[in-house]
Amino acid sequence: MTSATFTVQGMTCGHCVAAVKEEVGRIAGVTDVQVELDTGAVAVTSTDALETAAVKAAVEEAGYELVS
Amino acid sequence: MTSATFTVQGMTCGHCVAAVKEEVGRIAGVTDVQVELDTGAVAVTSTDALETAAVKAAVEEAGYELVS
Repeated sequence: MTSATFTVQGMTCGHCVAAVKEEVGRIAGVTDVQVELDTGAVAVTSTDALETAAVKAAVEEAGYELVS
Repeated sequence: MTSATFTVQGMTCGHCVAAVKEEVGRIAGVTDVQVELDTGAVAVTSTDALETAAVKAAVEEAGYELVS
């Protein structure tokens, strides 16, 4: 199990949080996603280390931007 | 056919707009709902004049506040 925290820009409400959780949660190997609306912090737990590109793609699919 | 415009507070993004459209759209007789995110204006078209209480209830069900 491994964890990584990313920063997402553009989330404004609980619906945004849910959209990001849903898309990031679909990445293969992801077992948990915690999102903090105020800071944009997205903590992802997965069975193996994630490719940042996969997280970026999922965040963009949800309609937001991965800034780090 | 009649139209009325209400003001909703608290919408921050497209998901919020969709939630309000969906709930207000469920009111009996409503045929169209247009929401302007920036101003909070919600224009409702219906077969008969709506009760403000019904619109207020729908907006609150979606998680927002009807201010006028």
